[in-house]
Amino acid sequence: MSEQRTEIASLGEFGLIEHLTKNIELHNASSIVGVGDDAAVIDPLGKQIVVTTDMLVEGVHFDLMYTPLKHLGYKSIVANLSDVYAMNAQPTQVTLSIAFSNRFSLEALEEFYEGVYAACEEYDVDLIGGDTSSSQKGFIISVTALGEVQQDQYVRRNTAKEGDLLCVSGDLGAAFLGLTLLEREKKIFLESPQVQPDLENRKYVVGRLLKPEARRDIIAFFAAQQLKPSAMMDVSDGLSSEILHICNQSNLGCVLYEEKIPIHEDTRNAAFGFELDPTACALSGGEDYELLFTIAQSDYDKLLLNEQISVIGYMTSPEKGKKIITKGGNTFDITAQGWNAFTA
Amino acid sequence: MSEQRTEIASLGEFGLIEHLTKNIELHNASSIVGVGDDAAVIDPLGKQIVVTTDMLVEGVHFDLMYTPLKHLGYKSIVANLSDVYAMNAQPTQVTLSIAFSNRFSLEALEEFYEGVYAACEEYDVDLIGGDTSSSQKGFIISVTALGEVQQDQYVRRNTAKEGDLLCVSGDLGAAFLGLTLLEREKKIFLESPQVQPDLENRKYVVGRLLKPEARRDIIAFFAAQQLKPSAMMDVSDGLSSEILHICNQSNLGCVLYEEKIPIHEDTRNAAFGFELDPTACALSGGEDYELLFTIAQSDYDKLLLNEQISVIGYMTSPEKGKKIITKGGNTFDITAQGWNAFTA
Repeated sequence: MSEQRTEIASLGEFGLIEHLTKNIELHNASSIVGVGDDAAVIDPLGKQIVVTTDMLVEGVHFDLMYTPLKHLGYKSIVANLSDVYAMNAQPTQVTLSIAFSNRFSLEALEEFYEGVYAACEEYDVDLIGGDTSSSQKGFIISVTALGEVQQDQYVRRNTAKEGDLLCVSGDLGAAFLGLTLLEREKKIFLESPQVQPDLENRKYVVGRLLKPEARRDIIAFFAAQQLKPSAMMDVSDGLSSEILHICNQSNLGCVLYEEKIPIHEDTRNAAFGFELDPTACALSGGEDYELLFTIAQSDYDKLLLNEQISVIGYMTSPEKGKKIITKGGNTFDITAQGWNAFTA
Repeated sequence: MSEQRTEIASLGEFGLIEHLTKNIELHNASSIVGVGDDAAVIDPLGKQIVVTTDMLVEGVHFDLMYTPLKHLGYKSIVANLSDVYAMNAQPTQVTLSIAFSNRFSLEALEEFYEGVYAACEEYDVDLIGGDTSSSQKGFIISVTALGEVQQDQYVRRNTAKEGDLLCVSGDLGAAFLGLTLLEREKKIFLESPQVQPDLENRKYVVGRLLKPEARRDIIAFFAAQQLKPSAMMDVSDGLSSEILHICNQSNLGCVLYEEKIPIHEDTRNAAFGFELDPTACALSGGEDYELLFTIAQSDYDKLLLNEQISVIGYMTSPEKGKKIITKGGNTFDITAQGWNAFTA
């Protein structure tokens, strides 16, 4: 936080909103009326609209002891955009409501909004509305994101087909290790404030936690290649939990190959540092914001064009169950917490 | 609250959402995909969309000591629908996110959602998404409402014209007196728990606070009469503050007649009981959820058809200022807190 401290009360609610939103310029053709009226107005120009919303609560979803406010603002937006991309849609607008206790200064809120606007800029999204309020305790963030999709080109979770390839973008497990690392450093700091944090070689996993990006590039790749996944969702609660959602909602089983799960080398090293199994981190860790999707086998050649996409398994009939085949060749049931071997 | 107490933790987050949303049926033609995917999908079928959002925080916006959870759920939705109507639009969808501490049982949340669904039913709106989370303290509610409007039929605040009539629906000041009354009874109860609350003849003002309605009927009247206000907003922060918004955003002045401000007889009596000026309550009290609008003088005859609409003044050129003419014939500047006479 910057050193100056301006009390919010000195502006009043309308003054605060005015101050925080005065530089907004609407970029999307569909954004007709933005902040400043009873409601914003959007003209989707014949497209369908997707809507998603998320609430982030201090002490539950984030810890301000190691989360810079600017990063938090960025991530609050990105987490919602990821849900829009997961529908095969293009995000276009967001609304943002925040509640904060009187320990927050105007400068602190400005930092938060800097991150919000950075994300809006990066993803070509307009901030079109919101609300600010005081809270009794802590910082609470609610974001609603809207996006556009051509008629019936949206992709749901419940439409995977037997035989489809199971794919994921990027790599998994890093954000969980970033969190594990920062939680450890926080504990050390609280016990011995003079100890310097040991974040050597941990930039990647910490960055994946604090400043995640949404997979706009994957949706653009689908459009360019005229690919349409049969089912898709974003990976925010861990790979195994998300795979089970697609299987259950599509009434299918699957086979997942452990060796195909993409894990970054830095993630692997960080996991070993904590004596954790990297695969378990990928399966059960959260906040990766990658895209998990199923797609027809006939599209396999096109998928090879994108090295950010890994084929990690395939969909089966429901009676075959949801299985993971380990590197050692064993087969286990996938559970929301990883696989049964953990609890065995 | 009901007597049974089921801990939320026994369901888990997905179980909770599933439990609270399992009976949803989508009614609006534009609601394509509802709860249960990364995002909802809407097809506005050629119309424009309005979007508004509000955050309500326990201890700031409501007091659960005298606010039944069912009423709170109802009001959370209605407050947002009021903003949609204020754009001359028809509300069609809402999303709802809540965060709650562990003092809330499943039964308490069910009561809250009962009110939410009652409002959705009453106003033909679909609940299409949301989020649930724990909070460190208190109950936090975030609602986003979407509505539809025919191309360019939305009405903003900044488009009033000189000479237009200034009008308001229903009556004003009741919710503020309901709040004043309940705050007094709470204080008495905390000091002397054996004293019975004195709410005799106060049903109207308490009802206006706890179970407000949005003015769907006024928007329907405009449509039926082919009327289009030149500017409109809802009255949630008190009449004088809202009039100033329309004047400032439209770069106009106005004349408001005190004697024309609609105040219910029960509101007037309640005000006298507290030795308050009923006009001051109407000007500065909040949460009336009435519609304030300006309209061409040529539409005056049509306005007479609706006894729920009062003409309370007219718009002037900006240099004439924003004036209220009192019953005694004096002229004062309108200020956000009422008028200057209060501070004189």
